Amino acid sequence: MFPETGTASLAAAPAATAVFTAVLTEGPLSRVTLARRLGLSSAAVTKAARPLIDMGYLYELAATERTSAGAGRPASPLAVQADREFFVGVKITADELIGVVCDLCADVRATARRPLSDPSVEAVLTELGRLVDGLLDGPGDYRSRTRRLGLAVSGDVDRTTGQVRYSPFLHWRNVPLSQQAARTTGLTVTVENDVKALTAAEHWFGEGVGAESFALVTVGTGIGCGLVVNGRLVSGSHGVAGEIGHIAVDASGPDCHCGGRGCVEAIAGTEAIVRQARDRSGRPELTIDDAVALARAGDERVGAVFARAGSAIGSGIAAVANLVGPARIVVSGEGLAAYDLFEAHIRAGFERQAFGAAVDCPLSIRPLPFEEWARGAAAVSIQSLVVA
Amino acid sequence: MFPETGTASLAAAPAATAVFTAVLTEGPLSRVTLARRLGLSSAAVTKAARPLIDMGYLYELAATERTSAGAGRPASPLAVQADREFFVGVKITADELIGVVCDLCADVRATARRPLSDPSVEAVLTELGRLVDGLLDGPGDYRSRTRRLGLAVSGDVDRTTGQVRYSPFLHWRNVPLSQQAARTTGLTVTVENDVKALTAAEHWFGEGVGAESFALVTVGTGIGCGLVVNGRLVSGSHGVAGEIGHIAVDASGPDCHCGGRGCVEAIAGTEAIVRQARDRSGRPELTIDDAVALARAGDERVGAVFARAGSAIGSGIAAVANLVGPARIVVSGEGLAAYDLFEAHIRAGFERQAFGAAVDCPLSIRPLPFEEWARGAAAVSIQSLVVA
Ligand SMILES: [Zn+2]
Ligand SMILES: [Zn+2]
Repeated sequence: MFPETGTASLAAAPAATAVFTAVLTEGPLSRVTLARRLGLSSAAVTKAARPLIDMGYLYELAATERTSAGAGRPASPLAVQADREFFVGVKITADELIGVVCDLCADVRATARRPLSDPSVEAVLTELGRLVDGLLDGPGDYRSRTRRLGLAVSGDVDRTTGQVRYSPFLHWRNVPLSQQAARTTGLTVTVENDVKALTAAEHWFGEGVGAESFALVTVGTGIGCGLVVNGRLVSGSHGVAGEIGHIAVDASGPDCHCGGRGCVEAIAGTEAIVRQARDRSGRPELTIDDAVALARAGDERVGAVFARAGSAIGSGIAAVANLVGPARIVVSGEGLAAYDLFEAHIRAGFERQAFGAAVDCPLSIRPLPFEEWARGAAAVSIQSLVVA
Repeated sequence: MFPETGTASLAAAPAATAVFTAVLTEGPLSRVTLARRLGLSSAAVTKAARPLIDMGYLYELAATERTSAGAGRPASPLAVQADREFFVGVKITADELIGVVCDLCADVRATARRPLSDPSVEAVLTELGRLVDGLLDGPGDYRSRTRRLGLAVSGDVDRTTGQVRYSPFLHWRNVPLSQQAARTTGLTVTVENDVKALTAAEHWFGEGVGAESFALVTVGTGIGCGLVVNGRLVSGSHGVAGEIGHIAVDASGPDCHCGGRGCVEAIAGTEAIVRQARDRSGRPELTIDDAVALARAGDERVGAVFARAGSAIGSGIAAVANLVGPARIVVSGEGLAAYDLFEAHIRAGFERQAFGAAVDCPLSIRPLPFEEWARGAAAVSIQSLVVA
């Protein structure tokens, strides 16, 4: 079914990559529009698109525009054949694998989860194999048109080598995950940090499409941030970027596991909220769900913990807006299941600290199911098909 | 002497801009190296360089390399004719104009200052005319080879239109400065925010050359930051970027003039330091120079003010490193005349809050004479010659 390209990217020439990326992320575009947008000649666009059409990734929509009124031949827009290829995306957490099948446009076609009793690499690989088999051999006949798998893991991940250098929640160090998962599944595997994967999905297929810059802030066990600046993901010259969770916002705040003091994560991460809620309520057995329930029921002491956390997150988001000025900021993550307790305080903290016109930066605050993280992993896998 | 190009940029074609920029910022380069570096054919490099050589901006060094051992014709590196054109740069402060003449490589050839008794636009323009005349008509015969002037102003500046939208220290609003200064001086004028101008100078002619990303932090009356990420200056989608001074680092810190609380500038700006030093010492007449002298003489109460300020600056710098991961960070500004009082605390604050490998980001902490700001203004003027 597939050409003999093995694991190589589809579009070898820069022009082909540019054409494919533009149609994939922006929707159907005529060759004339593509040529203008990409600074290419019409002939170059036609040449670049030809093999993508021949392989079935792009197709010509029925003609809807003419290059000029009454004259010239019709310009058929190029569109993506979404079901030409499918991609599996899996988010790995310490106690569960969350998987999706996406089409070429990153639309989710199927989902599945498997609990993990043990976050060792071996156990995760075994369950991953079962999850992928279940997704591909279920209804939909995805197996025959799927050859790529994206994995998303929290922590320090080297996307280039597919290695997980350090994942604190999984207790993994220097795991060559892409090779091992490829052996288990028979698929070509990409591995990316989970926040960066989610940012990639927003950049190509979500609110970040067309934005020169945007930020995605995730709230949960950790507090992270993916940044696109000057049209490209920020990766950090020393391998660190987007660490909004360790911006210091309170000089007399609690110590953080990173060695800092008063970090956003030390005030607003899930563990920090549980610890403060236990202290304030005097109930050492409290879970995060208990804390949310108490705050929702009107417990002022526990409510104040969420207020302080929201304010710290808002200050951190304002730091992002003040420093890099993204066009928009999406705030999301599993922590925002408690959206109602956070939102007003996040906005108030942001508005207090946003400098001048930075306050105009729109915040989209929304909860995020784990399937979205898995979709982010699939989006990275799609990118690896398109961009060398 | 000049071709009839008026105020237009020199290098109209993208290839010519790329060739000129590369030779200007990286030093002499052979056509072969340029072609490889810029992804152009040798023929395209030769074609792009020809008019720049004809106009006297580039010249061929004596041949020093051959394209391959023993064969081929010698590849003469292209170099910049530094004294082909000169540029005036002026930093405008509320009580003084600081001016320089720079050559095409941004090397300072002459300097001059003029005190301002009145920061009104009219008074500044009058003194600016005198300053420029003094610089150009003095020794060096700069007048005949100078047609561009760069101005650097603190505050909100629109480089594209040359308008100063708001400069709090000068009390200016919506001043069409480039047009007015052009009328006064007869030169083509660029206007840029002072921190961005200094960043431009570092990017093209200083520690930022060749870096995909770097940051410049300025410490003084205000605390600012210029950022280059993914090879380009970050300007902010809403017109705000680099506002490190208004990152909140202390939730129980002093209120800031921006409406925020515990901002870096509210703790470490010159006014904040004077206010705290007055409070701590009980001497309401204290100036910043007095505060520096007291701290240097071992006054612990005033010394603690500088320590807190340095720590706040260090936290802010760590936020920059954690979020965007610059290759290196230069810390400078007139506030660093008190370098000895700040440095250890800046470094300690940075090291405490830098996350993981972000601590590897090198900090260059150095004082900065006002002439460097004026050179930044000249660098922006040079850019306007080179890049359309
Ligand atoms: Zn931390
Ligand atoms: Zn402020």
